[in-house]
Amino acid sequence: MNRSLLLTEIKKKKSYLCVGLDTDPEKIPAHLRSLPDPVLEFNKQIIDATRDFCVAYKPNIAFYEALGPAGWESLKKTVDYIPSEHFTIADAKRGDIGNTSSMYAKAFFEAMDFDAITVTPYMGADSVTPFLSFKDKVVILLAHTSNPGSDDFQLFRSSGGSTLYEEVIRKSQAWGTPENLMYVVGATRADRIAEIRKLAPEHFFLVPGVGAQGGDLREVSSQGMTSDCGLLVNSARAIIYASSGRDFAQAARAEAARTRNEMSRYLSEFAGW
Amino acid sequence: MNRSLLLTEIKKKKSYLCVGLDTDPEKIPAHLRSLPDPVLEFNKQIIDATRDFCVAYKPNIAFYEALGPAGWESLKKTVDYIPSEHFTIADAKRGDIGNTSSMYAKAFFEAMDFDAITVTPYMGADSVTPFLSFKDKVVILLAHTSNPGSDDFQLFRSSGGSTLYEEVIRKSQAWGTPENLMYVVGATRADRIAEIRKLAPEHFFLVPGVGAQGGDLREVSSQGMTSDCGLLVNSARAIIYASSGRDFAQAARAEAARTRNEMSRYLSEFAGW
Repeated sequence: MNRSLLLTEIKKKKSYLCVGLDTDPEKIPAHLRSLPDPVLEFNKQIIDATRDFCVAYKPNIAFYEALGPAGWESLKKTVDYIPSEHFTIADAKRGDIGNTSSMYAKAFFEAMDFDAITVTPYMGADSVTPFLSFKDKVVILLAHTSNPGSDDFQLFRSSGGSTLYEEVIRKSQAWGTPENLMYVVGATRADRIAEIRKLAPEHFFLVPGVGAQGGDLREVSSQGMTSDCGLLVNSARAIIYASSGRDFAQAARAEAARTRNEMSRYLSEFAGW
Repeated sequence: MNRSLLLTEIKKKKSYLCVGLDTDPEKIPAHLRSLPDPVLEFNKQIIDATRDFCVAYKPNIAFYEALGPAGWESLKKTVDYIPSEHFTIADAKRGDIGNTSSMYAKAFFEAMDFDAITVTPYMGADSVTPFLSFKDKVVILLAHTSNPGSDDFQLFRSSGGSTLYEEVIRKSQAWGTPENLMYVVGATRADRIAEIRKLAPEHFFLVPGVGAQGGDLREVSSQGMTSDCGLLVNSARAIIYASSGRDFAQAARAEAARTRNEMSRYLSEFAGW
């Protein structure tokens, strides 16, 4: 899937919701745990329940890796199950020397069929560009993340006055285009999103941190939205663990619908749709 | 395995060689390719051939991920096969928000039994510390890497005159100790290793980039060695692909032995052993 198909879906659904599949076996409702692959079954029911209200799914790769080889089986089957009109993001935060980044790209774009992957910029150009050489695949580069520690290095400030995350956004725009390069900008940094938008007026931002991490959807939308929307806002725990009982899928559906309805209002208010 | 056991092995073998298991199915000798698990078989023969001359093995996780779930099976069996006196490093370059880094730690320290993992610092303290909470496990944090792109952000310089990689080394020393925290310092930056050593006099450095990437072992050793050695130097392609024929294991053994003999001289010359 490419950017223009994603935009079509956003317009059709009036939603820029990404559902985070941070599926933790310890949080899966008890009645699913005796099944052969509880993680896959949980994901399938979450996908069935939320697909009408979201445009993207983002499995958090760590949660699958923690389960060993079986986790990779669950992950692959989950990606295969996601409807083709949804944008799929491997939240993997990979990045290594050129030949190794190429292998990671193969893992997520060929061995599995993700549309996008999150990449960490610390190692520079040749750690990022191998991911950008795949047609109709997207790199989502970490810029300013949502966690408390993001201040440790991302706010490191040069003599010229710019911060590391600003430098990442500036420099990386020479490596990709708004078609194949997006940025991670945490919702907990909503006060900075308007500034970051000035640095990258056309690129999509993937915004984690709404919900459990405390970010505010209205604030994020007012600061970061463009006339092409330009936002994918991720919500994981607030949706997939909306209930821990037999009604978990219904509860997830209700929470996804509520979020989508809120988004629909912001698209009208801030993008003029 | 902990630092003092690692040091015992270094002293016993007079070697600080880490063999990188960057096992690429396309480079495995033809006669192994019809076996049920060519990657595992290749690794086993490389391990058998080199174990007398090295103190550590470092599987490059990307190469296994690129093979899908089967690659994770090969990786787990490889780690299980490595003799217990060897230090095992998951070259994974992970790092994410706290609860996600905890999952990555479980993946490599519990689902698999690695002694150490490489971690990327971009997301700051709470992305690194979950890995440090495991007893007798080691974090190897990226500081100054060996690839061309490392200059893009690692040399980003603050108004105070220090670079990002120096800031990473300074700040992270508050998170761990020389027992559970090491740094990645690329061999292609040998001219800077002496300076980096001043910032972290007691921490081990994992040094990739000798061999195929062009780093010089003598220069690295003269600049970075401490009285406790303080170095693990990785060589991957130069050893594991020393021959592409039926004699690949013998050729790997010869190259590992040659490297170890060179290291043994440097331990005498620079550490006074």
